Amino acid sequence: MKKLVNDRERFLADMLDGLKLRDENIDIIEETVVVRKNRKESGVALVSGGGSGHEPAHAGYVAEGMLDAAVCGEVFTSPTPDKVLAAIKAVDNGDGVLLIIKNYSGDVMNFEMAQEMAQAEGHQVSSVIVRDDVAIDNKEQRRGVAGTVIVHKYAGYLSDQNTPLEEIVKKVKGMMESLYSIGMAIAPCLVPTTGEYGFDLDENEMEIGVGIHGEKGIYREQSETVDKIVGRLLDELFKHTDSSRLIVMVNGMGGTPESELSIVTNYVMKKLQEHDVTVSRLLVGDYMTALDMQGFSLTVLDEDQEVLDSLEAETGSKYFK
Amino acid sequence: MKKLVNDRERFLADMLDGLKLRDENIDIIEETVVVRKNRKESGVALVSGGGSGHEPAHAGYVAEGMLDAAVCGEVFTSPTPDKVLAAIKAVDNGDGVLLIIKNYSGDVMNFEMAQEMAQAEGHQVSSVIVRDDVAIDNKEQRRGVAGTVIVHKYAGYLSDQNTPLEEIVKKVKGMMESLYSIGMAIAPCLVPTTGEYGFDLDENEMEIGVGIHGEKGIYREQSETVDKIVGRLLDELFKHTDSSRLIVMVNGMGGTPESELSIVTNYVMKKLQEHDVTVSRLLVGDYMTALDMQGFSLTVLDEDQEVLDSLEAETGSKYFK
Repeated sequence: MKKLVNDRERFLADMLDGLKLRDENIDIIEETVVVRKNRKESGVALVSGGGSGHEPAHAGYVAEGMLDAAVCGEVFTSPTPDKVLAAIKAVDNGDGVLLIIKNYSGDVMNFEMAQEMAQAEGHQVSSVIVRDDVAIDNKEQRRGVAGTVIVHKYAGYLSDQNTPLEEIVKKVKGMMESLYSIGMAIAPCLVPTTGEYGFDLDENEMEIGVGIHGEKGIYREQSETVDKIVGRLLDELFKHTDSSRLIVMVNGMGGTPESELSIVTNYVMKKLQEHDVTVSRLLVGDYMTALDMQGFSLTVLDEDQEVLDSLEAETGSKYFK
Repeated sequence: MKKLVNDRERFLADMLDGLKLRDENIDIIEETVVVRKNRKESGVALVSGGGSGHEPAHAGYVAEGMLDAAVCGEVFTSPTPDKVLAAIKAVDNGDGVLLIIKNYSGDVMNFEMAQEMAQAEGHQVSSVIVRDDVAIDNKEQRRGVAGTVIVHKYAGYLSDQNTPLEEIVKKVKGMMESLYSIGMAIAPCLVPTTGEYGFDLDENEMEIGVGIHGEKGIYREQSETVDKIVGRLLDELFKHTDSSRLIVMVNGMGGTPESELSIVTNYVMKKLQEHDVTVSRLLVGDYMTALDMQGFSLTVLDEDQEVLDSLEAETGSKYFK
């Protein structure tokens, strides 16, 4: 198998050991829970996480201004409730804990179970579930994808402004009302723990609406030029938003080179201009990936001054640009 | 061809247009020369560049604390002397210009020709040639690879300290005496302008000593676990250095996911510890890539306080972490 790994069984452990060497501001507790070395002494603590394979999400966002802890499951596998509970207990400073959960059944089940266990132990814990992927029609079933990173940043900012837990929940839920993402892939990821590709895609095929684990999208099509691909993704997003002022994220899927992300960005901005949409903030980079999948996703969000302020606020994360 | 591009002929133009949308601090002049919007009013100006396909190098390093201009050639193709000359003239503020050239015959020829032309017009211009790739035995023929980015940062710092041109040249040359890199690939890059793979590699083969355009390495071997690969690369580097205190860069080749870069880093640090080497600064990320090639390179450099200071100095580049 062509992967830079040592031992499939140690993928997560080796990755977290390496991450700790790369970032002197984090600690790893309970083997798979990444926390800040300097814990916050006040303010709502933010805990996120989920299966691994989406790096830099979520451990890369454990930093001042963003998350307090990331609970890391095995590749594409939810972390167990006991690990989430350990994270909550490690970061709660008395001002409460917010769990930011991507909408996958395993994540929701395990994070909510931990939430109940922590509440039973006297912790004040709330949760929000991110469902930004409009590839799924049913609103309740939508997956949480790249938009989750904007939630991390916004909630981190609110926490730093000493916003109380329930107020953060309310504001984040309001913000998520207009948060929509859609992804595409031209090449699948190779899952290191199984040695299998996430899905099959013929030479010259692309998948529109793909999930960050390689879940099936809305449809499959012959590969096209970027302007047409961008047009297809925006068509899906415009089914949900008609705002003329948007915050926009162009997210690389992990194996997409920087050069192509710039080319994609160029056509995204061109097309938005054609639609008379003003982009009040543009984010481009690998924020929420699917291992080495080649492709990208677009996330849009209604312009909002507080969200814009949150995106400009300082963070210790090297991955939020 | 499975690439996120619109038109092969417009790869560079579309990429630079996108880059400009991503970075409000840059301007593009003469179509392919990236300069800072706020030019430096004093201090030696730094110009680098070369063929495209190595993003974020070099345009991503046009920022406070690093480069003043990057001259971008077509993919894997040297820029022409007139573009380099335009860059020199755009950034020279009277304190002189340093050209930082990677050692490829086209780059050396075209940058040196521009240097002579600029000198004939009265500009004070010096140049340094980076030859850090020890995959080539002959010292003069060694290619310039990821170590070039450390040169950018060090020279940028020296310039910001108001170091005169010839003193920067002397210091950079001294620093390059102990700068060594070696790369490897498990999968080649797909060159968007030709639709061809940079080289052929059988399933389960890897290339040790590969160049950043997919140039042939030292040898080809069956794919191995990361600890063994890291051992092979360090063996090559230890033929050139026996320093016990090193600055170390783990550079992703463009298509290597973050998770694997962390795993590689873990084993690099383990092996260096076994060799009683202290790492005084660790840099990990995609600094100098080869489109979507999967693999990594290691760069080592003798510990030096001034170089360390330069690596910690502020920069406006989002890509130098």
